[in-house]
Amino acid sequence: MPVNPESAIEVTAFNWVPPFAEGLVRDLRVRWALEEAGLDYRVRLLDARTPRPDDYFLDQPFGQVPSYRDEEVQLFESGAILLHLAISGDRLLPFDRAARMRSVAWMIAALNSVEPMLIELLNIDIFHSGEDWTKERRPQVVDKVRARLNRLADALGDREWLEGDRFTIGDLMMVTVLRILRHTQLVAEFPNLDRYVKRGEARPAFQAALADQIAAFRETENQKEGADA
Amino acid sequence: MPVNPESAIEVTAFNWVPPFAEGLVRDLRVRWALEEAGLDYRVRLLDARTPRPDDYFLDQPFGQVPSYRDEEVQLFESGAILLHLAISGDRLLPFDRAARMRSVAWMIAALNSVEPMLIELLNIDIFHSGEDWTKERRPQVVDKVRARLNRLADALGDREWLEGDRFTIGDLMMVTVLRILRHTQLVAEFPNLDRYVKRGEARPAFQAALADQIAAFRETENQKEGADA
Repeated sequence: MPVNPESAIEVTAFNWVPPFAEGLVRDLRVRWALEEAGLDYRVRLLDARTPRPDDYFLDQPFGQVPSYRDEEVQLFESGAILLHLAISGDRLLPFDRAARMRSVAWMIAALNSVEPMLIELLNIDIFHSGEDWTKERRPQVVDKVRARLNRLADALGDREWLEGDRFTIGDLMMVTVLRILRHTQLVAEFPNLDRYVKRGEARPAFQAALADQIAAFRETENQKEGADA
Repeated sequence: MPVNPESAIEVTAFNWVPPFAEGLVRDLRVRWALEEAGLDYRVRLLDARTPRPDDYFLDQPFGQVPSYRDEEVQLFESGAILLHLAISGDRLLPFDRAARMRSVAWMIAALNSVEPMLIELLNIDIFHSGEDWTKERRPQVVDKVRARLNRLADALGDREWLEGDRFTIGDLMMVTVLRILRHTQLVAEFPNLDRYVKRGEARPAFQAALADQIAAFRETENQKEGADA
């Protein structure tokens, strides 16, 4: 159980999010990486429904979560935090330089070549649901998503992880990105991708990270119910 | 002039793109980083208007440019290639671990927190220009872009580069990303960002990289005119 209020590592997260976002907020990626690395961390909870404190923008210029600090660095962007954790330890990237950089390439592919079109679909289906423009736009975005997943499925083939039999930050990022589509059946259209996501989600480190993210939301709800009673 | 057919470093690029994309195609980022690092490279040109060769997907799983190879690694994703070049040399990242990782965070912020909404606007204005849905959607995207630029302008303040007086791969990536908005006046609304982009574009390494990307397009046009005559 790596959540430890005494840890030198601090990760920011939200104290509550709407149900559709549970298990998607990006502190999950950092919690998961910390669990894989066997490092404990403390959590600084922010209220998603009120403006961020002014000084938070020094840590996270866009006011998002997560931000991260330890005794050495202060960072934002889940991809940069994962990279820092991976190069500080030995569990999240291979040693060989060529394989190591391919895994980094997959992490960045998840962030820049896959996630943006998945977020576009999520925006249509959740934040702009029912708006007129989405009727014409949604099928275009679904086509783009499907074409990209098709390439990704080809690249994965029948391997366990993207670069073979070793789980890396490339897989960690890609699995969390593909989870953005969980409100659709799009990943299920590609059985090897579907199994890949499920393999990622089955890892004990993912399960622990997810449980800890959700626990904070439940605690906030319980406190509110207590205050309202 | 680092384009050298004998170089051990190979970068892929397109032999021609439509005018709106000149100076935006992402091999520019890698050419720029190579120029900053003082490394020469050879270019493998691909025809953007015909399907990629089958074996190209082994190098670049999504069929995009650039892909990269040298004697040590084979990579895709401009962000991963920049990171490889930066950690192989000493010109594109600070030495201090904390400053180094902040620069990496800015590079990833450019790719994941800024570029996606800029591409969404570019898609509306170029690829889907005139489609009905864009009338309702465009103002929403412009609002999101403006809010994000506002945060970025605050973070930059009156510094020369994002982390102070040293140009890094974080700046290189952010400048190339902000250039995506050059068909609008949005960056000009934030004078410090506008000056920042112009400072990046004024670097001799950027100018050389841009000239070499464009030269390949002109050469293709000249060859075609020759063949048509």
